[in-house]
Amino acid sequence: MIGRFRYQGRIFQGEVRGDVVVDGDVETGIQEVEVLVPCEPTKIVGVGLNYYDHAEELGMKIPDEPIIFLKPTSALQSHEKPIVHPKVNRVDYEGELAVVISERCKNVSEKYAEDYILGYTCANDVTARDLQQKDIQWTRSKSFDTFAPVGPFIQEDVKEVDVLCKLNGKIVQKGNTKNMIFGVHELIKFISGVMTLEKGDVILTGTPAGVGKMNRGDVVEVEIEHIGTLRNPVI
Amino acid sequence: MIGRFRYQGRIFQGEVRGDVVVDGDVETGIQEVEVLVPCEPTKIVGVGLNYYDHAEELGMKIPDEPIIFLKPTSALQSHEKPIVHPKVNRVDYEGELAVVISERCKNVSEKYAEDYILGYTCANDVTARDLQQKDIQWTRSKSFDTFAPVGPFIQEDVKEVDVLCKLNGKIVQKGNTKNMIFGVHELIKFISGVMTLEKGDVILTGTPAGVGKMNRGDVVEVEIEHIGTLRNPVI
Repeated sequence: MIGRFRYQGRIFQGEVRGDVVVDGDVETGIQEVEVLVPCEPTKIVGVGLNYYDHAEELGMKIPDEPIIFLKPTSALQSHEKPIVHPKVNRVDYEGELAVVISERCKNVSEKYAEDYILGYTCANDVTARDLQQKDIQWTRSKSFDTFAPVGPFIQEDVKEVDVLCKLNGKIVQKGNTKNMIFGVHELIKFISGVMTLEKGDVILTGTPAGVGKMNRGDVVEVEIEHIGTLRNPVI
Repeated sequence: MIGRFRYQGRIFQGEVRGDVVVDGDVETGIQEVEVLVPCEPTKIVGVGLNYYDHAEELGMKIPDEPIIFLKPTSALQSHEKPIVHPKVNRVDYEGELAVVISERCKNVSEKYAEDYILGYTCANDVTARDLQQKDIQWTRSKSFDTFAPVGPFIQEDVKEVDVLCKLNGKIVQKGNTKNMIFGVHELIKFISGVMTLEKGDVILTGTPAGVGKMNRGDVVEVEIEHIGTLRNPVI
């Protein structure tokens, strides 16, 4: 697994091996480094209603094409750093598998999509649900600073995996990526057919059922099989 | 006015004085340089339905708060470069005044908004109207590569100005920024209350009435009083 780290003022990409981070010849204990967002996206593309059970819980019909939206990179937050609750009525967690793009690509076919995937990580598509329901567009509700926690590390090879979300240690969402309406390769084909994807760009593949409200003082974790756990306190 | 240019492989920011570009002690004829997008945004924030007449022509009610959306930076296109018409039924021009942010800011009040404006330029919020009407979210319809022409140059001080859009030389949109529902300072307050704005970020302030279809072979111009003309062929 690879990550981005800060140690003694220096920012570097390193490989995580057990409890050390390896960067060339240098090994540093993982407890000593600050874990940063593991990639540097120029954009974050979200996919709405991409699990059958989540579309049902919202009472929305199953889409015939992916529904895409953007989150600004200013919303990125790293593992263990806080999600800042703005002055709105309801802020929801949405645990998701995130795909990280390996190099610039455009009009990628499903067959070759794998070639443009650097790997997978955990993400929380934090959403101010009351604003999402009020506004015509989802942008405001999903764009507050800290509303895009991503990390902690990127795992290269991931197939069908369980996606869990825990609120204060209790499981609140449980899905498996095999229940996505549009799979990862289909999403890359669809999105890259619209816009050029750049190295480090992130695709949030949608959330399974069980979305719900977070309050200040809560701790939210997105735990994905074979990848790890992204944990953030809400303040 | 300031712009970004490429000349003999070098990219630089320069001041436009008549028909020369001034960069320190060096002057280059404006005909010799390639005009680039005049800023390097990390995000492009659009505002929907921000002119009374445009909201009316779409049959939408006047919003009580700005409706914001994002366009990806991969959609940026410079002056004189083509807008590439994707395989969709209808691609519309939307001539707009664009605001360029001067430095990182967050939670800016209307009173201090002026301090964070680098200047103003022309933009075309190109939109695949059929996809906008089909999709729940506007993202796909506004995110195709080349769907965000911005430029040519940034003018520092702009007040109430006419915003024109011409298709093949014929005026198709004519508005004045005094008819915006939410003014520039109000927009900066609203948007920066949600997300941190970075130096070079662009706010598209909305389009007046008269939006319409462009076809391959057309030439579209966004002409703003005291700023200049952004011209792009459609291919």
